[in-house]
Amino acid sequence: MEILQVEAPLVCTQRVAGLQHVSLRVLRNAKTGKRQVAVDPVGCREGNWVFTAMGSAARYAAGDFEVLTDLTICGIIDYWEEQ
Amino acid sequence: MEILQVEAPLVCTQRVAGLQHVSLRVLRNAKTGKRQVAVDPVGCREGNWVFTAMGSAARYAAGDFEVLTDLTICGIIDYWEEQ
Amino acid sequence: MEILQVEAPLVCTQRVAGLQHVSLRVLRNAKTGKRQVAVDPVGCREGNWVFTAMGSAARYAAGDFEVLTDLTICGIIDYWEEQ
Amino acid sequence: MEILQVEAPLVCTQRVAGLQHVSLRVLRNAKTGKRQVAVDPVGCREGNWVFTAMGSAARYAAGDFEVLTDLTICGIIDYWEEQ
Amino acid sequence: MEILQVEAPLVCTQRVAGLQHVSLRVLRNAKTGKRQVAVDPVGCREGNWVFTAMGSAARYAAGDFEVLTDLTICGIIDYWEEQ
Repeated sequence: MEILQVEAPLVCTQRVAGLQHVSLRVLRNAKTGKRQVAVDPVGCREGNWVFTAMGSAARYAAGDFEVLTDLTICGIIDYWEEQ
Repeated sequence: MEILQVEAPLVCTQRVAGLQHVSLRVLRNAKTGKRQVAVDPVGCREGNWVFTAMGSAARYAAGDFEVLTDLTICGIIDYWEEQ
Repeated sequence: MEILQVEAPLVCTQRVAGLQHVSLRVLRNAKTGKRQVAVDPVGCREGNWVFTAMGSAARYAAGDFEVLTDLTICGIIDYWEEQ
Repeated sequence: MEILQVEAPLVCTQRVAGLQHVSLRVLRNAKTGKRQVAVDPVGCREGNWVFTAMGSAARYAAGDFEVLTDLTICGIIDYWEEQ
Repeated sequence: MEILQVEAPLVCTQRVAGLQHVSLRVLRNAKTGKRQVAVDPVGCREGNWVFTAMGSAARYAAGDFEVLTDLTICGIIDYWEEQ
């Protein structure tokens, strides 16, 4: 599971039906700077370090296997220092 | 879910049966310049910033699990500035 | 779905049972030069630009979910100029 | 399956329900320095070299397909020298 | 399917139950030097060039869907010259 930092919510009014009721966040890889979008079932705040599940596990982690995601936040790390 | 920009439709007359009725788009990663092909169930326009699901989620997002895709557009981002 | 160029057929007499009746091709990424092996249900010729499905979609695209592939050619692109 | 080195346990009090009873470890890729979080059903110690399964295999390897992981430690390598 | 070269068997006495009866090999990517562990149902020798299936196809290729692998050797390439 990848370790990423929460940046901001994602505003997206036009989306596929299967994503209607989930909260979306932009996550950032501190090393490469790459940004990705993830479903957030945990309730993160900006700046939180989180770890994520991708692939079919992301759909289980979203709490509903029918949610159309390939990346879901699994937990907030209590303490993390990027080395 | 990855953040990509819509470039152009893909013209492809010779394809496997399972892709017959879907709309295909070429998407571009703004950072690396890498191009990929995705199924578009949303109706994007050139220049739109979108986020995509890959893997088995891509088949769900296409609206029909039998569609033979590994990348599907999930939504159009309202505002995005590539940093 | 990735965009790759067909290089050559793959000669492989010793293989797992589940790959017995499929045609295999070596595909090349024009940017990175990386080569991969894909199942070809379309009938490509050397030099063709194709797009491919990976993961579980590759097994559907092969026309038989039991085919042991993680990469299958989905279609031949009518016109492609590598930028 | 990837070859990684065990660094430390991961402290994470706020997590999704499906991860409640598993042990989590931070693993490090010796070449790239990239860190990932994995489920540990084997019982590793810091410094151990392990190999991991990702994707849906990670859920089988965790001993319970319902565990929400995309990376699980499969075994401890008896002897490994990073070249 | 990736093209890799067989390096050595992997010695690993402590492993998860689902890997008990399979033969494991260390494979090497000739370009990047990256090493991975794969299940070998074919019977390779050191130096062989092979191609591999990853993801859920790896479990089918292992001859038993319950084998906890994400990488399995699918065949030995008759002739390969790394360019």
